[in-house]
Amino acid sequence: MRMITGCRHFSTTLLLQSKKNKGDGKFRMERDTFGELKVPADKLFGAQTMRSVINFPIGTIGERMPKPIIQAMGILKKACADVNKDFGMDAGIADAVSAACDDVISGKYYSKGHFPLVIWQTGSGTQSNMNANEVISNAAIKAMGGELGSKKPVHPNDHVNKSQSSNDTFPTAVHISVGLELNNRLIPSLCYLRDAIHCKSIDYKDIIKIGRTHLMDAVPLTLGQEFSGYAQQLTYGVDRISACLPRVYELALGGTAVGTGLNAPKGFAEKVSARIAELTSLPFVSAPNKFEALAARDAMVEVHGVLNTIAVSLMKIANDIRFLGSGPRCGLGELQLPENEPGSSIMPGKVNPTQCESLTMICAQVMGNQVAVTVGGASGHFELNVFKPLIVSNVLRSIRLLADGSVNFSKHCVEGIEPNTDRIEKIMNESLMLVTALNPHIGYDKAAKIAKTAHENGTTLKEEAIKAGVTEEQFKEWVDPKKMLGPH
Amino acid sequence: MRMITGCRHFSTTLLLQSKKNKGDGKFRMERDTFGELKVPADKLFGAQTMRSVINFPIGTIGERMPKPIIQAMGILKKACADVNKDFGMDAGIADAVSAACDDVISGKYYSKGHFPLVIWQTGSGTQSNMNANEVISNAAIKAMGGELGSKKPVHPNDHVNKSQSSNDTFPTAVHISVGLELNNRLIPSLCYLRDAIHCKSIDYKDIIKIGRTHLMDAVPLTLGQEFSGYAQQLTYGVDRISACLPRVYELALGGTAVGTGLNAPKGFAEKVSARIAELTSLPFVSAPNKFEALAARDAMVEVHGVLNTIAVSLMKIANDIRFLGSGPRCGLGELQLPENEPGSSIMPGKVNPTQCESLTMICAQVMGNQVAVTVGGASGHFELNVFKPLIVSNVLRSIRLLADGSVNFSKHCVEGIEPNTDRIEKIMNESLMLVTALNPHIGYDKAAKIAKTAHENGTTLKEEAIKAGVTEEQFKEWVDPKKMLGPH
Amino acid sequence: MRMITGCRHFSTTLLLQSKKNKGDGKFRMERDTFGELKVPADKLFGAQTMRSVINFPIGTIGERMPKPIIQAMGILKKACADVNKDFGMDAGIADAVSAACDDVISGKYYSKGHFPLVIWQTGSGTQSNMNANEVISNAAIKAMGGELGSKKPVHPNDHVNKSQSSNDTFPTAVHISVGLELNNRLIPSLCYLRDAIHCKSIDYKDIIKIGRTHLMDAVPLTLGQEFSGYAQQLTYGVDRISACLPRVYELALGGTAVGTGLNAPKGFAEKVSARIAELTSLPFVSAPNKFEALAARDAMVEVHGVLNTIAVSLMKIANDIRFLGSGPRCGLGELQLPENEPGSSIMPGKVNPTQCESLTMICAQVMGNQVAVTVGGASGHFELNVFKPLIVSNVLRSIRLLADGSVNFSKHCVEGIEPNTDRIEKIMNESLMLVTALNPHIGYDKAAKIAKTAHENGTTLKEEAIKAGVTEEQFKEWVDPKKMLGPH
Amino acid sequence: MRMITGCRHFSTTLLLQSKKNKGDGKFRMERDTFGELKVPADKLFGAQTMRSVINFPIGTIGERMPKPIIQAMGILKKACADVNKDFGMDAGIADAVSAACDDVISGKYYSKGHFPLVIWQTGSGTQSNMNANEVISNAAIKAMGGELGSKKPVHPNDHVNKSQSSNDTFPTAVHISVGLELNNRLIPSLCYLRDAIHCKSIDYKDIIKIGRTHLMDAVPLTLGQEFSGYAQQLTYGVDRISACLPRVYELALGGTAVGTGLNAPKGFAEKVSARIAELTSLPFVSAPNKFEALAARDAMVEVHGVLNTIAVSLMKIANDIRFLGSGPRCGLGELQLPENEPGSSIMPGKVNPTQCESLTMICAQVMGNQVAVTVGGASGHFELNVFKPLIVSNVLRSIRLLADGSVNFSKHCVEGIEPNTDRIEKIMNESLMLVTALNPHIGYDKAAKIAKTAHENGTTLKEEAIKAGVTEEQFKEWVDPKKMLGPH
Repeated sequence: MRMITGCRHFSTTLLLQSKKNKGDGKFRMERDTFGELKVPADKLFGAQTMRSVINFPIGTIGERMPKPIIQAMGILKKACADVNKDFGMDAGIADAVSAACDDVISGKYYSKGHFPLVIWQTGSGTQSNMNANEVISNAAIKAMGGELGSKKPVHPNDHVNKSQSSNDTFPTAVHISVGLELNNRLIPSLCYLRDAIHCKSIDYKDIIKIGRTHLMDAVPLTLGQEFSGYAQQLTYGVDRISACLPRVYELALGGTAVGTGLNAPKGFAEKVSARIAELTSLPFVSAPNKFEALAARDAMVEVHGVLNTIAVSLMKIANDIRFLGSGPRCGLGELQLPENEPGSSIMPGKVNPTQCESLTMICAQVMGNQVAVTVGGASGHFELNVFKPLIVSNVLRSIRLLADGSVNFSKHCVEGIEPNTDRIEKIMNESLMLVTALNPHIGYDKAAKIAKTAHENGTTLKEEAIKAGVTEEQFKEWVDPKKMLGPH
Repeated sequence: MRMITGCRHFSTTLLLQSKKNKGDGKFRMERDTFGELKVPADKLFGAQTMRSVINFPIGTIGERMPKPIIQAMGILKKACADVNKDFGMDAGIADAVSAACDDVISGKYYSKGHFPLVIWQTGSGTQSNMNANEVISNAAIKAMGGELGSKKPVHPNDHVNKSQSSNDTFPTAVHISVGLELNNRLIPSLCYLRDAIHCKSIDYKDIIKIGRTHLMDAVPLTLGQEFSGYAQQLTYGVDRISACLPRVYELALGGTAVGTGLNAPKGFAEKVSARIAELTSLPFVSAPNKFEALAARDAMVEVHGVLNTIAVSLMKIANDIRFLGSGPRCGLGELQLPENEPGSSIMPGKVNPTQCESLTMICAQVMGNQVAVTVGGASGHFELNVFKPLIVSNVLRSIRLLADGSVNFSKHCVEGIEPNTDRIEKIMNESLMLVTALNPHIGYDKAAKIAKTAHENGTTLKEEAIKAGVTEEQFKEWVDPKKMLGPH
Repeated sequence: MRMITGCRHFSTTLLLQSKKNKGDGKFRMERDTFGELKVPADKLFGAQTMRSVINFPIGTIGERMPKPIIQAMGILKKACADVNKDFGMDAGIADAVSAACDDVISGKYYSKGHFPLVIWQTGSGTQSNMNANEVISNAAIKAMGGELGSKKPVHPNDHVNKSQSSNDTFPTAVHISVGLELNNRLIPSLCYLRDAIHCKSIDYKDIIKIGRTHLMDAVPLTLGQEFSGYAQQLTYGVDRISACLPRVYELALGGTAVGTGLNAPKGFAEKVSARIAELTSLPFVSAPNKFEALAARDAMVEVHGVLNTIAVSLMKIANDIRFLGSGPRCGLGELQLPENEPGSSIMPGKVNPTQCESLTMICAQVMGNQVAVTVGGASGHFELNVFKPLIVSNVLRSIRLLADGSVNFSKHCVEGIEPNTDRIEKIMNESLMLVTALNPHIGYDKAAKIAKTAHENGTTLKEEAIKAGVTEEQFKEWVDPKKMLGPH
Repeated sequence: MRMITGCRHFSTTLLLQSKKNKGDGKFRMERDTFGELKVPADKLFGAQTMRSVINFPIGTIGERMPKPIIQAMGILKKACADVNKDFGMDAGIADAVSAACDDVISGKYYSKGHFPLVIWQTGSGTQSNMNANEVISNAAIKAMGGELGSKKPVHPNDHVNKSQSSNDTFPTAVHISVGLELNNRLIPSLCYLRDAIHCKSIDYKDIIKIGRTHLMDAVPLTLGQEFSGYAQQLTYGVDRISACLPRVYELALGGTAVGTGLNAPKGFAEKVSARIAELTSLPFVSAPNKFEALAARDAMVEVHGVLNTIAVSLMKIANDIRFLGSGPRCGLGELQLPENEPGSSIMPGKVNPTQCESLTMICAQVMGNQVAVTVGGASGHFELNVFKPLIVSNVLRSIRLLADGSVNFSKHCVEGIEPNTDRIEKIMNESLMLVTALNPHIGYDKAAKIAKTAHENGTTLKEEAIKAGVTEEQFKEWVDPKKMLGPH
């Protein structure tokens, strides 16, 4: 029945595709409840990780579970070990586990290939949780002089995962990683760009320019006022992040398998959240309802709604800037953007608004990620959402792209913008929409007639206004761009 | 060159397509800066509205500009008239304008066809603003004994639109209408459903049932706990709305054409916002940056991100409920949903979870609307976003559908749910995952072996546990669903 | 527990909200398997329709099930009656049913309120199928002199629905209505616009203008060439529709309840499809696999993918045209768009590209509808997709908006465009990118130097080229826009 | 003004972040029209690539321009060199360029870090085109014994890029890579899965099971019929790809900078397309309208609409399979899915439908990518779409994920499915919906009564049917699941 034989064979797994992770060709046996399995001798992970490597050979290196989620897993495993010690776990084991987590938190074990799993694994992230359990237990075993894979004296489930389930650890790692990335990466990056734009809005406060509505000439404003709107959009972006953080700070840990907290001691949830707050310097707390915290990922959908809004803001800003910088001779030509590189392989001397292009492409990606997160968030059933690696990988990617894109756009574009003041002034003065200033004096209908006649005849407003009975003094007094920049 | 001749002709406009709006066949002349135009004699709108009717014959009656935006336009025109009076507008005129707004606010003029325009007009909503100006001025003229269409003594631009522009009135109407609909329609409806679910979660607090993760049998929880997660999702939904309201409450009015406030007196923005707050009993304020307030519609993208999150929550809840109610004999069968109507035209006696279907379709629509709003929000240029009717119509439709859907789902489904307690208890007791309670006593690996053997042999946990060395007393003591509902 | 009491009451149903449908206040009793129910005496529908009216009071008049789906239901019911007659149904009854369908097909019964149901009903469309069954049976009963609601001599299920199920009729109506709307509405409308653009591309074949890439000045092309690209996009749009039509033409009828065809005679599927093909003059056929035809709505997701692509094309075209028409004095100013209405309530004389705005808003809506259709298509389970009213209403709305938008955009914008030839020529000649023509003669690097120097000095290319050693004759010979319009 | 100082520093570029690409720390000077720049001595790229590395330090290794696009760039550069030789380019140079392309085509240069650029660069892909030009020219220079970076005897622009522009090469590479990936990766993978499902549908042709509509018990069908619907969905998926390929096969090459073909010889477009067809064994042709081919990327939006449809199909299939496999004791329990790994870190013995979860997450990602591609496709302006790297990276990622996901899902799930025939038969026989078979004999209303009574009383259909007057013989004759599997 198999008519198609040309199909690729998956004999090589992702692990083995990557030279770096290939190891030295030596293996050791690891075991889980399904039996024994060879794993590369120089890796700390065990049988369940290896099983996932074999079962999910999907995509390229870009499909790997993102680093921040693994680091967050390190943080929570450390917190659990510390709290489990308080609840009576053998201090030697607890301390070894806690210490082993540090190399997960630093990212060292991720970089060295001990976390090879892809996003497209089980939807609960169980395999990444077990990957963490296995790596940490082996690292602790090693530190305690035991044999890798022996699960003695440190068992991945009974010790590293104690009082936990993938069902509460993975969503906790989701919230920790997203909380950290929002605070430490996105907010500073947005502020960085916002500040650059704000500086420009102050620098440009006296440059009067044509306003454009519907892309058409409108009444004037200052270039500073225009840029102040962009700065305001980004300030709101930061406010929006702040508004959703309370729900990001709520952690699922303590819910264990289905939210009841089975097999966890009373108080575990609260203590472990407090320890995580300490480790991260962020106000994480235990979620008030663990059933919601396991079954839904709504807080991530909410966060991405904010990221989507920020993408919308940045799209608008970057589009405006490239249109204002269009030309040099046949465009709007109001701004001169920094020239960073040759723009064309065929047109010599061409320079393009490449930073705007990079940023707007990022914004489009974030708008797409929004739908992926939404579909994932809506598709949970009963006690567990099983689209979590999809969801968190999109949230983290959107954060990273928006953050990097914002800083880059600031450094390589916004900060180097120069206004073409001559051209700005020239075209502003030619605009017919200055006629609006006549409304309070001669009424909308009469003013409209003046503007339309000037447009038809290719004349100036002043000429037609005088023909229509406005005196030269009145015109000068009334139609003064400087007086059109605010309420009277 | 026109090879295709079969194309529909648009000789009939939307106005004339609708019998109700056809009028009595009599017309009067109205005029704008483009010239004269016949309008139906029994309608209060003028030439610019008529021009839009003719220029945009798009779609069916469903494409009409939504009523809440027109009512909000009435609110803001009234506020402006009242404040213009303070700023020196002729009191007779100002009062007549203010009074005329009442029939816009009540929805009367909308219902009677005085606001015939569609969403797919100019992207600034200028034509709907002028529609309001024309209707209000004619209504005021009528009240003052003047001649319709004479613009005397009340001019649509010079009086009704005084110190305003479409560019600040339309976004203000957007924020007013969305603020009102969120507060008066969506929040109460979500609370209504939340409360119904919360009641159920209390009623069901002692019904122990199987938990399901990955759709597979997991450890038990109570039906009340399961429902408490749904209630929590909706409580967060309300929190999410609250978190974005501060930016909804900021009004663009006072920015006039491009955000500078040209032609408006100082203090106008603040006074008019205060008056609107008074009229609506909502804490509306003047936006701190009018350039952002005109050029961006980010606050609407943010609001819809929240609506999208609420849709995700409702999708999860409705899906769970229909799966739990599946059967009656070949499904999960834990819940009995109310039987509201015959379910099949061919299968006699069939009853379906139609309320869940209605609600989940609504959620899918909201997820789609999210993209429409996002694209519209991202596509503004320079001083004005011109995707505003698109944006606001989607936000208002999502609010309305979610609100109606939630209340309906509550009334016709949730409130009538009955648990099938016998079946719930029976299948819970058969579950192998109760084995989890053995972990702390015999370890994960040994417990796994017991569960797997029982699964393979089709035996009970107890049988296999005893074979594996657990005593009957221990089993009874340790594997007790009642003890598995919380931390120990 | 009900803390919120402010929630809207749903005592009035949609039916009664609409004056037109209110009837004269008289009622008759109708009955279904759930019991008796009052329905308005002047309406033909029965108890199941009334039940849906009561159970789904959701949204405004815009939420009504679209007319084309009801008309398609009339077509298929007629086809079934005709074929049932061949299969032995009483000829008098069959003919009466067939005749009664004509007023459904014409849209008369829809307009008169006999089809009051909303989209947000059961996801199978069962209630709209029963609405059709009830209206048709009552109309046939009436024609045969029987008593409305008596189900004699024509029973809604046993006769009108004979050998059918909602599960095969509703998807059939989906395919019929979409097939008709694509062929009779969208294709002609796209061709209409395409032809208008194609005419322009011929008219403009000799107008040489600056090309713009990255929004920046590039090498020249003709305005006709530019417009030819738009025409090509629309031609492809029609090709794309054609490419997906084969799967639209496959009908589910004959599958009955789950795809097996239970209760339908052999040959029914093929005969009824042939009859539908006859009635519609479109090549409808019976779907080769009825299980797919009931359980999936993939063909609609595919169709909407094409509509989404067409929206993308139109968005590009409308955006280009409004940017090229921007100004009149401070924009690109290459095109003069028709002036259809006053553009501003505050800026006298302002004219805006409102048709572009209307069309681009429509495109954004279609992009949103794409996600709604996708989520609906992905959310089916087992033998039936129950997101069908959502799916088809979005597909039909997108078709209608794109069609109306295209014709309108053609009539009120494209056909009236005038090129500003003076300005087009002037700015083209100032462009530095004409330097590209020097590449083959002096190399890319040297040419780049010339362009960059001219840009820095504000000089012309010619001046700098001559300084760089190109002779005046060479420059004239090489840098001739007329020679830059095609390969050499 | 910079209030935020905590922002990350971008002092390390992506190039230097990756150890593998770090090189030996030695550098050489390369130069472009912007000046000189150090590049790693062991890399073949030049100054423009280096400039992009420095200007766009965005994201992680996963953000790199995908390999297939670079390989396609190799194919087209080789084709151009071959054709340029025919058009008179120095044969030695042309042959050296052509030969150098082979290591781009094989992927060798990509793997070795000669193509370090990210997606988030200029939206035209100019930098990746120059990356290819630089690497190929340096490789050819090396082969000819020249000095790296000397541009002699092979110049990146004047030779490798001859008669080309980024504006026609990059879209050509887009179409080549997508055409190849669709044909060589996605179609075989979909067929692979389709065939596995088709085999199952034959294996299961005699297993009669309950049908489910609205998740509720419906009339029976065979498990083979159910699976045949899935197979049909995938067959249509392949048809859908085929339907859009004609537009993928059209290449932009020959359009050069804006579509006119400036600086390319007549016939170049056709010859180069023919050569590409030869190199790829796919029927590539020259696009009939180069203006469309440069300015729009509609064909990619169309292709992704098809990928989105395939994602919808796979989502449905994977969801059905995991629901049918739910249990083992408290779910539907009709299928036994292969057990690939331990499913829970806390619940011993738990096995989950992880392959379904992986695949449905992939589907959700593709639905998100659809919006990214749509926004990118809609955002082009004038002669060039500058969202191309975004668009193609999403199309390629969706193809790769769907392909890998399909094969994996087949191998690790579908092929190992076992039906639980006992349970399937048991619950089917208990279903009340077998009553449907009574319709033709006793009418819908009477049949409904029987079913409802049985439901209320918890009795069997047979019992209630007999009470209602059906004889035992009739019941046996009429209500026979075997007779309910097709039309009669």
